Amino acid sequence: MSERTYIGDLKSKIGEEVQISGWVNVRRDHGKLIFIDLRDTSGIVQMVVLPNHEEAHRIADRLRSEWVVEIKGMVNKRPDKMIKEGEENGELEIEVLEINVMSEAKELPFEREAELNLDTYLDYLPLTLRTKEKKAVFKVQAVILQAFRDFLNSKNFIEIQAPKIIGEDAEGGAGVFGVDYFENKAYLATSPQFYKQIMVGVFERVFTTGNVFRAEKHSTTRHLNEYTSLDFEFGFIKDHHDIMKMENQLLQFVAKELKEKCQKEFDLLKAEIPEVPNEIPFMKLREAQEVIKKEYGEDCLDEPDLEPQHERWLCEYSKKKFNSDFIFITHYPVDKRPMYTYEDENDKGFTKSFDLLFRGIEITTGGQRIHNYESLIKGIEKKGLDPEKFSFYLQAFKYGMPAHGGLGMGLERLTAKFLNVNNVKEATLFPREINRIDTLLNK
Amino acid sequence: MSERTYIGDLKSKIGEEVQISGWVNVRRDHGKLIFIDLRDTSGIVQMVVLPNHEEAHRIADRLRSEWVVEIKGMVNKRPDKMIKEGEENGELEIEVLEINVMSEAKELPFEREAELNLDTYLDYLPLTLRTKEKKAVFKVQAVILQAFRDFLNSKNFIEIQAPKIIGEDAEGGAGVFGVDYFENKAYLATSPQFYKQIMVGVFERVFTTGNVFRAEKHSTTRHLNEYTSLDFEFGFIKDHHDIMKMENQLLQFVAKELKEKCQKEFDLLKAEIPEVPNEIPFMKLREAQEVIKKEYGEDCLDEPDLEPQHERWLCEYSKKKFNSDFIFITHYPVDKRPMYTYEDENDKGFTKSFDLLFRGIEITTGGQRIHNYESLIKGIEKKGLDPEKFSFYLQAFKYGMPAHGGLGMGLERLTAKFLNVNNVKEATLFPREINRIDTLLNK
Repeated sequence: MSERTYIGDLKSKIGEEVQISGWVNVRRDHGKLIFIDLRDTSGIVQMVVLPNHEEAHRIADRLRSEWVVEIKGMVNKRPDKMIKEGEENGELEIEVLEINVMSEAKELPFEREAELNLDTYLDYLPLTLRTKEKKAVFKVQAVILQAFRDFLNSKNFIEIQAPKIIGEDAEGGAGVFGVDYFENKAYLATSPQFYKQIMVGVFERVFTTGNVFRAEKHSTTRHLNEYTSLDFEFGFIKDHHDIMKMENQLLQFVAKELKEKCQKEFDLLKAEIPEVPNEIPFMKLREAQEVIKKEYGEDCLDEPDLEPQHERWLCEYSKKKFNSDFIFITHYPVDKRPMYTYEDENDKGFTKSFDLLFRGIEITTGGQRIHNYESLIKGIEKKGLDPEKFSFYLQAFKYGMPAHGGLGMGLERLTAKFLNVNNVKEATLFPREINRIDTLLNK
Repeated sequence: MSERTYIGDLKSKIGEEVQISGWVNVRRDHGKLIFIDLRDTSGIVQMVVLPNHEEAHRIADRLRSEWVVEIKGMVNKRPDKMIKEGEENGELEIEVLEINVMSEAKELPFEREAELNLDTYLDYLPLTLRTKEKKAVFKVQAVILQAFRDFLNSKNFIEIQAPKIIGEDAEGGAGVFGVDYFENKAYLATSPQFYKQIMVGVFERVFTTGNVFRAEKHSTTRHLNEYTSLDFEFGFIKDHHDIMKMENQLLQFVAKELKEKCQKEFDLLKAEIPEVPNEIPFMKLREAQEVIKKEYGEDCLDEPDLEPQHERWLCEYSKKKFNSDFIFITHYPVDKRPMYTYEDENDKGFTKSFDLLFRGIEITTGGQRIHNYESLIKGIEKKGLDPEKFSFYLQAFKYGMPAHGGLGMGLERLTAKFLNVNNVKEATLFPREINRIDTLLNK
């Protein structure tokens, strides 16, 4: 056969004979007429097989959902009355001339339109990912990821590769997977934190994207045991506000890219691309707790962190008060942040750290880090940890580091919140959970 | 102080007062005159501290290598006789007015110019990565990686996230790391193979970049226990030549990007950006073995694979005969390739698979995959494996897959070969080996 035409390009081929390839989405048998909706990566189109094309009709009679076929057909404009308004390729129909079956498929385990529960959806991912809704989610995810890189490249950040196998469970036990590393025990990295800091000493500005691993036993709609972390880190900052500004610009760029490349996907999923303000509002944790008390009547002033309900309230407040879907909360207590977090000289006991909240949930954690060697050793000891175990990481500071900081965010959670997908597992291609790695695990 | 000027931009600031920040590369004390080479992410510059700037002179007296400083200084053009030809910023010198120490550094464990053995280099990576040669290697690596993505995005591939924790050590034991996954045993993925194939069923064309893990006990100059794999896979192909063509174009694009963005780094490392021919030559394994016999006198006709020396000879031959640094070797025996490899109908016992050789070594493995469900089950059984263990993966084929294929290549090896770096560990930021994860492991 001749050159393949993508279904997304059929509009420009009316009156022409084309060859298209794809999957049978559905086949409807009207006796003499057989209708086929054919799907390829670019779209979907209705085709009709007329009885006068006998060979094609005989083959069409056998076709079922998910069979892979090559079709030779004529692109016909529908009469005005027959145009399906608002439907993809609704103004045209393919008259099938020849069919070549490339792959058959077994009968599907459920109807294509069936509402599946999460477990069934996950059991059949190689099939259930093939819907246009799911494809939209992961197309958007790919665009977010590339926008993250493009923005940082434009700001002279260098991409680095951080290792996932680490030697010491240095930060202290909870939530780390063990690895059998030849004769030794190793662990899976929960973040690229140490490596990106080390690389600030080399390149000043670095970013990395890759899988990280959390051995969290709870299975919620917002946690994953393995996810893609988007991280950047840069030096010669004044304080955490430089990082927040960088993230602010990054999010504006991501939103712009999504508008250009994914409006169709957002429309399909009935989600809105967020407006990112020029200056995302920010407040200290204690101010945020005052707001919660005043506006929502709950006293959480003595708590060292925000509960999920508090995050939802603060987002609601930010929308109402500042017309912003985003709000930074800064100055978490020293005790609640990792040992490398920078304490505010002018607000002792509190750190130059921040969370970014968006549509009711934290989507980023970041902050300025300690760059002074002696202070960092003190920070490690204060957490009851052994500086000796951090000797490799500590070299970066021993041999001169500028003031620096950065942030990390989960790509899947970000995708889910952008698209209003309720469960982060539905914004993860192959989610790992305590009882499932692709298939359910034996207990 | 005022706005920071990058050292790379000083040429346009002659006669101006600037603020620059960076690391002291070296400091030379000539009594009254103190010279400092200052380094930032963009370059290096010589500075002089005159005794009449007393405060700056007193601080400069204390400075040592790797201290991080902010400098206020005047950009002076050197007299014609004093211009250092061929040296970065050789036409100018900074007269230091003020120095602000941001971070001190301990005394270095070795001289900056010392030739280090590999173990010492690896022991001190947070420091030893700071040389301009090492920075050049990893800048080039970042550009290769982004070029890989940009090319595939331009060809309508979608980026996917493949999980690294897998449930079954399905392909059979050797070379896989075990993970303690709650109450179960899991493994680290040796490649994203199954997931990218599954995703061909969803998006037709996909790529992914991420860490993979090989529990290989040998420590050589070409192997790593963890590396970054660049993978793509696409459907509706005719045969493996479609994949080879795609790789050919990809490599041309990578070379073009390197020429535009990294000529300086290649010059520094005395390496040449390869010319990628419009059609990389290809031959079957058996033809290649005939060449080896005829040209180099070694009879390896009965061997199922190529030894390292054979790969070197074939590259030499390709350069001489076809003026190509690259050569594809196709049609490895069915027995030597994974169970999903497509057998050539017209050359039974041999597969539509290929390796790409470049400058003496294999840099890519790829091929067409089996897309027929029943054939794939047979392929699995033929390898003595249990199809039941592949049930999740097999769904993709059960529910209709087009002819497809793809390839994988190691980013670190590719970087090393492009730059003529002898040991792949020196093209890996934080290489994992049997006895080392950052620091040497206890036995």
